[in-house]
Amino acid sequence: MTEDELVAGIRERLRGVTATRVLVGIGDDAAVWQPSRSNRSVITTDALVEGVHFTRDVMSAHDAGWRALASNLSDVAAMGARPVLATVALGFPAGTDPAWLLGCYDGIAALAERARCAVAGGDLTRAPAITFAITVVGEVRPSNLKRRDGARPGDVVAVTGPLGASAAGLRVAGDPGLAADPRFAGVLAAFRTPEPRLRAGRRLGASRHVRAMMDLSDGLSTDLGRLCAASGVGAVVETVPIHPGARRVAEVTGQDPERWALDGGEDFELLLTVAKRAFEPLAARLKAATGTPLLQVGTMTAELGIRRADGTAIPPSGWDHLR
Amino acid sequence: MTEDELVAGIRERLRGVTATRVLVGIGDDAAVWQPSRSNRSVITTDALVEGVHFTRDVMSAHDAGWRALASNLSDVAAMGARPVLATVALGFPAGTDPAWLLGCYDGIAALAERARCAVAGGDLTRAPAITFAITVVGEVRPSNLKRRDGARPGDVVAVTGPLGASAAGLRVAGDPGLAADPRFAGVLAAFRTPEPRLRAGRRLGASRHVRAMMDLSDGLSTDLGRLCAASGVGAVVETVPIHPGARRVAEVTGQDPERWALDGGEDFELLLTVAKRAFEPLAARLKAATGTPLLQVGTMTAELGIRRADGTAIPPSGWDHLR
Repeated sequence: MTEDELVAGIRERLRGVTATRVLVGIGDDAAVWQPSRSNRSVITTDALVEGVHFTRDVMSAHDAGWRALASNLSDVAAMGARPVLATVALGFPAGTDPAWLLGCYDGIAALAERARCAVAGGDLTRAPAITFAITVVGEVRPSNLKRRDGARPGDVVAVTGPLGASAAGLRVAGDPGLAADPRFAGVLAAFRTPEPRLRAGRRLGASRHVRAMMDLSDGLSTDLGRLCAASGVGAVVETVPIHPGARRVAEVTGQDPERWALDGGEDFELLLTVAKRAFEPLAARLKAATGTPLLQVGTMTAELGIRRADGTAIPPSGWDHLR
Repeated sequence: MTEDELVAGIRERLRGVTATRVLVGIGDDAAVWQPSRSNRSVITTDALVEGVHFTRDVMSAHDAGWRALASNLSDVAAMGARPVLATVALGFPAGTDPAWLLGCYDGIAALAERARCAVAGGDLTRAPAITFAITVVGEVRPSNLKRRDGARPGDVVAVTGPLGASAAGLRVAGDPGLAADPRFAGVLAAFRTPEPRLRAGRRLGASRHVRAMMDLSDGLSTDLGRLCAASGVGAVVETVPIHPGARRVAEVTGQDPERWALDGGEDFELLLTVAKRAFEPLAARLKAATGTPLLQVGTMTAELGIRRADGTAIPPSGWDHLR
């Protein structure tokens, strides 16, 4: 059974458990509900597990806490929303140094402050490994809410930055010789303390020309496939924008940086589709307002599947937590 | 370092990360925020970990899912709120039978349906043990919100049912001979599929005579201590209402059922304090409307600490996840 099959089974089981005020349920970056007539709230939950997503030798307590919150904030950004508050459930093995646990909250607090997100509560429990499960609630004006199912053929496919830095950073973090090299500080930071695209997400949410949006957590190949599936369209990938830091690491390690960009995941850039004629002016406005670029990756097509410009298929090869 | 000391350290770290719309932060059953002027939302997160809170030999997949959601719904009930939606983060080891995982969602869906709570999203991840982290959002009219810090000397201390059944059920579940005995079905159900006191919680929330409320998740001795500490008062415990099923188990196993009632935890009854002259009519109205009793446990006192009527102290001896 694949992860997508398991999710389908879960969705089937939960079909009866809906409510009229839940407007977007399982399957988007975040769920959306309506606390009152003129408000929309979004909620997203993400877990970070020691030994699966990080190990204590490649990530400090501060960075693990930051990273755990960052993936949730990225989901909020992808809906066009702004964060309001977070809850943190933290599991840890018997004998864990309390200073390490408090260090996690330093990282959570540092990013929460940047993001203007309150940390409102949580839970502490024993667990076999350090386990963060963070939930973030955000809010968005109804007209600014972006889902992943609105892409149309002819739309420009774009991302908010070059890709592959987080995967390159993971490679560097696991090799003390590389980790000490100041040339690789940028990719290390991309892996350890990613910056969710909150300002860009809100700006893009406010543009009616942005037709679909999600965040890149599992890699461009997998996540673009999900956006295409949700929208019932396909895509041609013309350019894979590779992070220059990832290129530098790949030169040293002899790896293919395009694989990191396509399949590495956890870059937390936004993936969006934009009405073609609106793309250039929107990219210019976003750059001027937030410093964040919009890089064209390709074009949405009526034909299903994801292909390169030369016609070869790009298979999804990102994360499947059941594999 | 104790759990309470760790929580104090966490609170210190998160002090700067607040928001004007977060009205109740860390330390109550749930956090409270204000999505718009006339609304109050509550949010609570709770984790359930295999090997810590349950093992697969004493709990079915259905019951583990039910139990994981129940503790969150109980926190919502304790605020006087009603649930709106839940998110479910589920971690599981490689090789876990997908049917077991889907069974968890059957249990979650069964309780969510009873509680009229939508399940709106979540996350799946690898983890070293089955790990649920569930977050529930609820809502409450501002005037009905109950916190744990409003108790006053002279208030009646009450609970919504006799205690110790869950701890007795855990004892029974671990012993196949006892588990097969139909006399113990009641305590097994109290352990495996506890019923959060949602209807009672909303009724009690609507009474201005209820001055403080919380749910009993860590045992009467520990939780009454927390309510006293939050309110700056003490309590005399006159009667510990022991569940008749727990008494029957204790007769067979030779254990002290009062210890289960005081320290066992996870009974998910509500603990509240009520203005003295209002107690009898409120108990009668609650019983008539919901079938749920209000059992007097004792009386709040100006003198700090928790004592029995004969003056002997009752020390907190419930759960500390750091021990």
